[in-house]
Amino acid sequence: MASPDYSHHFSIRNIPFGIASGKAHPEPQVATRIQNTVLFLADLSFDSLSPGEAQDVFRDSSLNPLMTFPGSAHMAIRDSIRARFDKGGFGAFPEGSMEDIAHVQVHLPIQVSDFIDFSCSLDHVQNAGRIVINDDSPPPGFFHFPIGYQGRASSVVVSGTDIERPVGQYRSPAGDSTVVTAPSAQVDYELEFAAVVGKPLSRGKRLNATDADEHIFGFVLLNDWSARDIQALEMRPLGPLNGKNFGTTISPWVVTKEALKDFTTPGPPRRVPIPRYLEDPENTTYRVRLRAEIISGGKPTVIGEADVQSMYWTARQMLAHAASAGAALRTGDLLATGTVSGAVEGSRGCLLEVTEGGRLPVKLEDGTERRYLEDGDVVSLAGIAGDEGSGIGFGECVGKLVPSRPLEK
Amino acid sequence: MASPDYSHHFSIRNIPFGIASGKAHPEPQVATRIQNTVLFLADLSFDSLSPGEAQDVFRDSSLNPLMTFPGSAHMAIRDSIRARFDKGGFGAFPEGSMEDIAHVQVHLPIQVSDFIDFSCSLDHVQNAGRIVINDDSPPPGFFHFPIGYQGRASSVVVSGTDIERPVGQYRSPAGDSTVVTAPSAQVDYELEFAAVVGKPLSRGKRLNATDADEHIFGFVLLNDWSARDIQALEMRPLGPLNGKNFGTTISPWVVTKEALKDFTTPGPPRRVPIPRYLEDPENTTYRVRLRAEIISGGKPTVIGEADVQSMYWTARQMLAHAASAGAALRTGDLLATGTVSGAVEGSRGCLLEVTEGGRLPVKLEDGTERRYLEDGDVVSLAGIAGDEGSGIGFGECVGKLVPSRPLEK
Repeated sequence: MASPDYSHHFSIRNIPFGIASGKAHPEPQVATRIQNTVLFLADLSFDSLSPGEAQDVFRDSSLNPLMTFPGSAHMAIRDSIRARFDKGGFGAFPEGSMEDIAHVQVHLPIQVSDFIDFSCSLDHVQNAGRIVINDDSPPPGFFHFPIGYQGRASSVVVSGTDIERPVGQYRSPAGDSTVVTAPSAQVDYELEFAAVVGKPLSRGKRLNATDADEHIFGFVLLNDWSARDIQALEMRPLGPLNGKNFGTTISPWVVTKEALKDFTTPGPPRRVPIPRYLEDPENTTYRVRLRAEIISGGKPTVIGEADVQSMYWTARQMLAHAASAGAALRTGDLLATGTVSGAVEGSRGCLLEVTEGGRLPVKLEDGTERRYLEDGDVVSLAGIAGDEGSGIGFGECVGKLVPSRPLEK
Repeated sequence: MASPDYSHHFSIRNIPFGIASGKAHPEPQVATRIQNTVLFLADLSFDSLSPGEAQDVFRDSSLNPLMTFPGSAHMAIRDSIRARFDKGGFGAFPEGSMEDIAHVQVHLPIQVSDFIDFSCSLDHVQNAGRIVINDDSPPPGFFHFPIGYQGRASSVVVSGTDIERPVGQYRSPAGDSTVVTAPSAQVDYELEFAAVVGKPLSRGKRLNATDADEHIFGFVLLNDWSARDIQALEMRPLGPLNGKNFGTTISPWVVTKEALKDFTTPGPPRRVPIPRYLEDPENTTYRVRLRAEIISGGKPTVIGEADVQSMYWTARQMLAHAASAGAALRTGDLLATGTVSGAVEGSRGCLLEVTEGGRLPVKLEDGTERRYLEDGDVVSLAGIAGDEGSGIGFGECVGKLVPSRPLEK
């Protein structure tokens, strides 16, 4: 099948940052994407940066050095690119600075320092609770603060990386209580949104939600691949580990918070009093529509679409909560929202919810059906700010589930 | 009070690695400790390394580059130091290469990549279960694999760093179900042992316990400071987060596995069949005696002593389990055992167990008593291989609990 075209996500109003390489730029380095063109920033000059500063930061193989710059520096870079493009289109940039997206390889855009996966969606926790333990009451802490768990930083990979079906221990599907060691039979995806920390925060300093934006560099899509059977045996009481650590995929183009500034919107009202550090007058969040598809037999099937703004907790609140007990925030920290699910059918962010824990298979466009993912399935997440014509999107966050390599007996 | 003397932990048979600085070595760099002398390795020459190799690795501010070297390189460095000392004592080393431990500052020895805190002690989980939920059955996964959770890498600090009492949300001690936001009233320590990964393992490769030693560089003591009240509200179902992230202390001198080779010992027999990747004929572990003290009013009180070898799961098995679903192991990964507790009174590794969840205060040598830690308390963990005369120990892992900085209203 032809690759879907995401050029409309990358209008000149976006100007995200990523790490890419190509024929003319063999070393992974900082780039942006405008429509279907990748622009390598080390080939440009900027009034706001000395040549040395520009080379150092733009030739790095991760965005981390750039992310430590103040927000004004990021704005200056984006404004400069925009001004040039507005004046002369692609002709405004040196010819050698650009390569077509089809011929470019994207790389993990950030060096992940620490990764927390929160659980911000009330609909998700209620559905999951109902399905897994027949109880839809949210977890005890849910309305008081964003609940979450630390993820494994080294498990975060860039869109396009194959995900190997994990092997683990879980209770036999036969229903007796034997524990088997085998490839997971319940691999799922989770449709998520994640904030990337730029400006660090020292240990002990703590942070109010109303001051959190300054520490957010931008956002990516995130697929929190999950093995439900492995999770089930390991989770009590310390939370998920191997059921999550086998892989986490992020989209390659980090959309800056500046690009999203016209899409802020109030979040849901609070249901219980919250402490000062989480207070944010309108619980400000972003209007971003997310979508998850499974591609099988060459055909895509949209499984769910949900809105970031429907979630109970916001990015600002995730950062404030992560720092509230005195932990530091480091450049490259990744804080994800957990599965984004909405209130209605068609808005569930993972197969666990869509299939009611595997009970009600979902039909795919190629005529097959799924309870959980099968080897060869490609999961594609996408996201766009506002509506389809906004010109500011996240592109694609994609991964193929491949078979487990053989298990040693 | 006079600092305790740990020189007997650092005989010439130990030769651990750490990062230190001093008057003559103002930049933090690689060092070892012999008795009460710190030897800075960049000042020495080694037949096994070119001058350039030596300078690069020994002047680094973390052990990570050194840890990527093969085990034979670590052995050659230690053998060379030992041979010189055996021949000429301290006189065998250039005068400017040594500084007294009392005048040296230690630094975090490793750059922590990912940190997993496992829960390997059966006695600990049974006591904790009984105390917290009135049920001493081990967690569902306990006998099948080492259960654990990812910790926050940026929260790991070196011995000697103050730990600030965390602020968080928890259910009011008054017993009504109000949730308060306040400094934790239940700060505890946890006496733990941790493996440091040197040789990395790629994503997807997986690892058998019998092959795990090659990936272990060495071991440290670890204090998994915990806020029981904050943990209680947040843990269900995703595990602990802020109740742990406010600080984790490790000892400064990484004791190599080569130094511990005479202290291997079989671990406990298995109670259920385990998969190939966890099989290790004798469940080989190390004979290491750990001790936790609280220092209050200038007086130390030993609260508990327990043995690493009493735990159900071993370091090899922790590594194998961490990699079993396909996660990578990176140089600098830290894998801790969880609270080390034994079967008898006097062998509990945390106040939660010693005081039965705060019900039965413990008496301290200064005449006061404790349910949980008070501001100003110093917790000191120590550990020695074999018996007190072995000459191979971990020194001290110490931290003072200081008051929460004021909370904004």
